[in-house]
Amino acid sequence: MAHRVVILGGGFGGLYAAQALKHADIELTMVDRRNFHLFQPLLYQVATGSLSPGEIAAPLRSVLSTQANSKVLLDDAIGLDAANKKLILADVGPLPYDTLIVATGSRTSYFGNDHWEEFAPGLKTVEDATRMRHKVLFAFEEAERESDMDKRNAWLTFIVVGGGPTGVELSGALGEMANDTMRNEFDNIRPEDARILLLDGGERILSNYPESLSDAAVRSLIKLGVRTRNKVRVTGVDADGVTLRTAAGEERIHAKTILWGAGVRASEFGKILGESAGAPLDKGGRVLVSPDLTVAGHPEIFVVGDLAAMTQDGQPLPGVAPTAMQMGKYAAKVIESRLKGAAPPAPFRYFDKGSLAVIGRTAAVAYFEKFGKFKFSGPIAWLLWLFVHLMYIVEFEARVLVFIRWGFNYLTFQRGARLITGMAGKTRKPEPMGS
Amino acid sequence: MAHRVVILGGGFGGLYAAQALKHADIELTMVDRRNFHLFQPLLYQVATGSLSPGEIAAPLRSVLSTQANSKVLLDDAIGLDAANKKLILADVGPLPYDTLIVATGSRTSYFGNDHWEEFAPGLKTVEDATRMRHKVLFAFEEAERESDMDKRNAWLTFIVVGGGPTGVELSGALGEMANDTMRNEFDNIRPEDARILLLDGGERILSNYPESLSDAAVRSLIKLGVRTRNKVRVTGVDADGVTLRTAAGEERIHAKTILWGAGVRASEFGKILGESAGAPLDKGGRVLVSPDLTVAGHPEIFVVGDLAAMTQDGQPLPGVAPTAMQMGKYAAKVIESRLKGAAPPAPFRYFDKGSLAVIGRTAAVAYFEKFGKFKFSGPIAWLLWLFVHLMYIVEFEARVLVFIRWGFNYLTFQRGARLITGMAGKTRKPEPMGS
Repeated sequence: MAHRVVILGGGFGGLYAAQALKHADIELTMVDRRNFHLFQPLLYQVATGSLSPGEIAAPLRSVLSTQANSKVLLDDAIGLDAANKKLILADVGPLPYDTLIVATGSRTSYFGNDHWEEFAPGLKTVEDATRMRHKVLFAFEEAERESDMDKRNAWLTFIVVGGGPTGVELSGALGEMANDTMRNEFDNIRPEDARILLLDGGERILSNYPESLSDAAVRSLIKLGVRTRNKVRVTGVDADGVTLRTAAGEERIHAKTILWGAGVRASEFGKILGESAGAPLDKGGRVLVSPDLTVAGHPEIFVVGDLAAMTQDGQPLPGVAPTAMQMGKYAAKVIESRLKGAAPPAPFRYFDKGSLAVIGRTAAVAYFEKFGKFKFSGPIAWLLWLFVHLMYIVEFEARVLVFIRWGFNYLTFQRGARLITGMAGKTRKPEPMGS
Repeated sequence: MAHRVVILGGGFGGLYAAQALKHADIELTMVDRRNFHLFQPLLYQVATGSLSPGEIAAPLRSVLSTQANSKVLLDDAIGLDAANKKLILADVGPLPYDTLIVATGSRTSYFGNDHWEEFAPGLKTVEDATRMRHKVLFAFEEAERESDMDKRNAWLTFIVVGGGPTGVELSGALGEMANDTMRNEFDNIRPEDARILLLDGGERILSNYPESLSDAAVRSLIKLGVRTRNKVRVTGVDADGVTLRTAAGEERIHAKTILWGAGVRASEFGKILGESAGAPLDKGGRVLVSPDLTVAGHPEIFVVGDLAAMTQDGQPLPGVAPTAMQMGKYAAKVIESRLKGAAPPAPFRYFDKGSLAVIGRTAAVAYFEKFGKFKFSGPIAWLLWLFVHLMYIVEFEARVLVFIRWGFNYLTFQRGARLITGMAGKTRKPEPMGS
């Protein structure tokens, strides 16, 4: 019987592991509770109406259909029997494995204030993105109908929490939406009057980038009408706004739209790994992996991607797509070397190709550790970013379509995917929903 | 003060009326509870995973943004004060008009069995289509996981109720999905073994078409694995299948996926028109309009599209997009003639350009009353149908994108928008949801 590899999670880590095992003499089962791989770095484009969810998703079955050693199972992992090497699935029950690759990623963290989620959606799933899209589009519509000026201003105030790449890209896209896309479409409001605030707890936004690039990002955001505020801590979120703690004391901002880009924490399966396999977890619930990405005492269990906690040169590895991809490929390499009885590869080492964040259509900041620091602006920045991102998109069709859609958006200032859906009859309240 | 025209509903009837009034000296308000115009004839392509909702929707604000005399209001009409010429909106309250065009369309009819909706979604809204898509994709996944053969067969049985164009196009697309798109993607099932039944109550499917074309459609469906059954009446629908009354007596079919393409009824606003404006309604709740599409006794209220009931040459007008478009344009013409003090145009007359239904990628049946009857097959049929449909799509960007997406689908047998979304955590039950 062939060696059975089970991969839990079809994100970047899991999918790259599966594809790297394409020619291995194994029986591979990809387990995911969703039937598609999601290109998460572009989720904010769904949230701001530029792309449809289908355009940044690829059906897992379709992606893996040419891979003869692989099958796909749509199910939820609810437990693990590490002693007997069985993954416990909600519907199928126990699924035996010889090697398990856990790539369940991360989810939005509200730093212990989970009740904030109701008012401030995060951006990890398709449902998150369409919920954000709904909230944002709906806010402009409410403002248009509202005659009370205070209430109208609250509908036209957008708060983005978190000055990392997600928050920066999200607020930039919001600024562009208000200033370009929706300009002249309303009668009672001027969308370009929208107040967009990017709140950050640290000294500067994009703190992983060199300081000069943070400054450049701030200047680009200002051009799009986005105001950045640093060193503020969100202490309360409700239906009418946020409460902040700043150097000057407590502050209240009235806003009907609050978007959360502040933090992530480990997915739930980390806890299961801790309980069943004795995996050591860090404070955030991530699994502290060995240098070969396995769980201590369980060489047959790999953890890759956001769920894996690892430091390199004294720094924790960043929770980004390239880390997950490289980890997935590495796990595949270890498995293949074992099957061949060859020497194991050298410990995992993350190669930082650099970072790139785009701000609206006309600016981007980039940081290539190996090649120096760059700041781009204008169409060149946009094209570079486009190129880098598109090269990663898995499926040919989606890649070309996204490219074309962006081309149109760029030329026409249009956003084609501006649907407010899920409004049940007369209530029309924003609701979480899927694509 | 300029003449105030309020259009209720941004479907084909309302939008074409608005666009035909582009240069009129009026104040036009388009009221809709959704923020987008939906290209309904292509909804079945969303339901079967070929297109994303955003690709067949155009934001109303965007479509009307170049029209200086128009504004858009996102609200629900919950009443009418015809005596004082005020439309009552849920949020904004009373909205005064000088002329009102009602274009609220139709909704799915279960012929008095509304509880069937839970098990057999119709196909009128984006949420309907994504719910259908979810049900269909989920059924194949369930079948893949199911080891009990009877249950697996029930997951692989798909019932489409209604042999009109919707049912025919839907079942054809399902057949193609099972036979081509998903072939080789599963391990335990063969998607091409799916049983797809098209149930029709009449003597033949596509009863509005000439008989030879009905026969051609049946033959094309057979090639895609779809079996048509005529003269059967659905008497029961539940979570496990349908109960039928046939010439031979009662019959039960086990099926986990039932899709409803059988009938439509008037939208709720018809009743409001009856109560407030004394509009005469037909059995189905549609408004019996005067020859100039107004409500008797209320020359300032027009009803266009599916909500309007009218006969021509002894035949009721079909509830299709071209009827609505022509009615919308006609109402605009009447309004303009009144504003100019000119003679009213001749009574409304529907010009039947013909009918066209596509079955999978390789066959279509068409019927052009004025030019004879045709049956097309092969790529020519597909291209003709594509051309006819795309010419109607309102927004340039969406049109080009749909074209390209279809080109890829045609060449690659792929369906890019195959997302199962809205699965809440561990339950993964199909749920109604939006785009």
